[in-house]
Amino acid sequence: MTDPLQTGATIGILGGGQLGRMLSVAASRLGFKTHVFDPGTNPPAGDVAHRVTTAPYEDETALRAFAETVDMITYEFENIPTSALDILEKIRPIRPSRRALAVSQDRLIEKAFLSEKGLQTASFAAVDDAEDLAEAIAEIGTPAILKTRRFGYDGKGQSRLQSADDAAQALADMAGAPAILEGFIDFSREISVIGTRSLSGEVACFDPGENVHRDGILHTTTVPATLTSSQRMDAVLLTAKILNALDYVGTMGVELFVTPGGLIVNEIAPRVHNSGHWTQNGCAVDQFEQHIRAVAGWPLGDGKRHSDVVMENLIGDDMNKVPEIAREPGAALHLYGKADVKPGRKMGHVNRIKS
Amino acid sequence: MTDPLQTGATIGILGGGQLGRMLSVAASRLGFKTHVFDPGTNPPAGDVAHRVTTAPYEDETALRAFAETVDMITYEFENIPTSALDILEKIRPIRPSRRALAVSQDRLIEKAFLSEKGLQTASFAAVDDAEDLAEAIAEIGTPAILKTRRFGYDGKGQSRLQSADDAAQALADMAGAPAILEGFIDFSREISVIGTRSLSGEVACFDPGENVHRDGILHTTTVPATLTSSQRMDAVLLTAKILNALDYVGTMGVELFVTPGGLIVNEIAPRVHNSGHWTQNGCAVDQFEQHIRAVAGWPLGDGKRHSDVVMENLIGDDMNKVPEIAREPGAALHLYGKADVKPGRKMGHVNRIKS
Repeated sequence: MTDPLQTGATIGILGGGQLGRMLSVAASRLGFKTHVFDPGTNPPAGDVAHRVTTAPYEDETALRAFAETVDMITYEFENIPTSALDILEKIRPIRPSRRALAVSQDRLIEKAFLSEKGLQTASFAAVDDAEDLAEAIAEIGTPAILKTRRFGYDGKGQSRLQSADDAAQALADMAGAPAILEGFIDFSREISVIGTRSLSGEVACFDPGENVHRDGILHTTTVPATLTSSQRMDAVLLTAKILNALDYVGTMGVELFVTPGGLIVNEIAPRVHNSGHWTQNGCAVDQFEQHIRAVAGWPLGDGKRHSDVVMENLIGDDMNKVPEIAREPGAALHLYGKADVKPGRKMGHVNRIKS
Repeated sequence: MTDPLQTGATIGILGGGQLGRMLSVAASRLGFKTHVFDPGTNPPAGDVAHRVTTAPYEDETALRAFAETVDMITYEFENIPTSALDILEKIRPIRPSRRALAVSQDRLIEKAFLSEKGLQTASFAAVDDAEDLAEAIAEIGTPAILKTRRFGYDGKGQSRLQSADDAAQALADMAGAPAILEGFIDFSREISVIGTRSLSGEVACFDPGENVHRDGILHTTTVPATLTSSQRMDAVLLTAKILNALDYVGTMGVELFVTPGGLIVNEIAPRVHNSGHWTQNGCAVDQFEQHIRAVAGWPLGDGKRHSDVVMENLIGDDMNKVPEIAREPGAALHLYGKADVKPGRKMGHVNRIKS
């Protein structure tokens, strides 16, 4: 299974959102077809895929049929049901591996893994009930954030505790889901590193990007980030450490807080990442192509930054700004073809080339 | 019909080769779906299109059904049968217009049009028979090139006359097709300008590229081309003149010879052009997206060159070099997913970023 995929091979993609869409386009540049599996009708990735299967992740027959038509399987999101993976992995290789998924699907396991590898994280404690929470607050202090262990994204499944008085409300916000209390981190900026590891163990990282969030959702990523050269090197080295420790194959996003005490890992995402979208217009080979190269058994490409870029997400009504952005010097639009504009929904992004 | 297309609209593309493939990818970046019409099975563009119709251009029912599903129609090649256009244009707008097709489908009409607009071309004369050819040789002299008026590409349908002695062979090479004799041009280099005109009449041209051919097929395009600033300006102005004269909507390729007596127009192509592939890695907005913007009624984007690029075509066995190119610093691969490697067949290209 380690021969590189040849022109005309088909890559199966679990998930047909915008990440799957841009993975599919990257696959086409290398001569591959894609087959997208998604429970929703008309997924964004379907517009640029050779084939689409519309079925729930519980449909064994559809999963098997999907796997039979592809040469290998990758994914655009980390919350794929275990039962689906059990079926698929018996038919075709899945990359990145299940180990990466298992680690990143659960905040508690993720933090434990990172700590074990000697990387700094926020202080943390498992919280299943009020008693756990009281103990965790006593240990970690406030302010702190209570988060569901699984299925959180874009600030969902999180509750802030300014003091111990907020404990009951925070626990109620978890709606009974297993949770983790994380200590508050006083950071000067948030950055992320998009790194890729090939099947042969080669690692390449893009320049770290500096992220600004709004309402819990990524708003902009700016490259280059404001970092000292030693911070930049630390960020890249710890990303490589994570990739190697997981024997990872593919592209990963690593979110980091810059603090006076060094870099603290916020979270890892075993997939292409919103904060890596700038690479589409800043590099010869972008994060999507690096991922496809890795999972296809190809060598990694040259991800050196040739231009400074600011990526801005277009969320919900931001779509109204598209006619104006379309005329802007240096602006490269990337729209996802989503029919319905909803508040908080990622509709597209713009990469503004600054030099 | 002049409202800009909205996210989710479908663009019909006649022709599913590599140009259709890259047009389809560009359309996806602006949130559009594409529907590709091609007589061949598994066309390269089908891998990244929302929908594909496989039918001959003579199939009226298929043409009508295709037109009904799209919001407007464009094309990736100029030799679309007139009968198909007659059917399609009654249902949906076709951009660029039929005038551009009529002019560029026939070398004689094209040269007459260019001359009429005051642009320099090779000396030329229509040749239908041996008598015409003898007269044309007397007028134009040798060396000269006899070309079929229609359906020529990549050096096909051409015969070189070193002297009048080659007349009979050259005429035989035309196999009875109406032809045109073109005088030999002593040029220092060949360049091309990729220009786009929007529905509202706005014109934008990419930096001229310098072309090198091998065996009649484009081998490399280098930007920037070696030109004086006045030659550069002349090249762009004459391209704008052609676009405006044809009331053109979309991207066009204009091939020019650089001679001591000024720029001579070799030929025009009413579509995206192989010599414009460098724009994918040299500009925020490439020739494919400019075309889609134009035909969709959008404003044109910023096509300023941010990097120097050398584009090299990968033809036939050049595919053997792909594993090596995949590791090359600065190399951006673009493969077309064609299953069969044939001599002379365009399989992909590589854009090498030079700065």
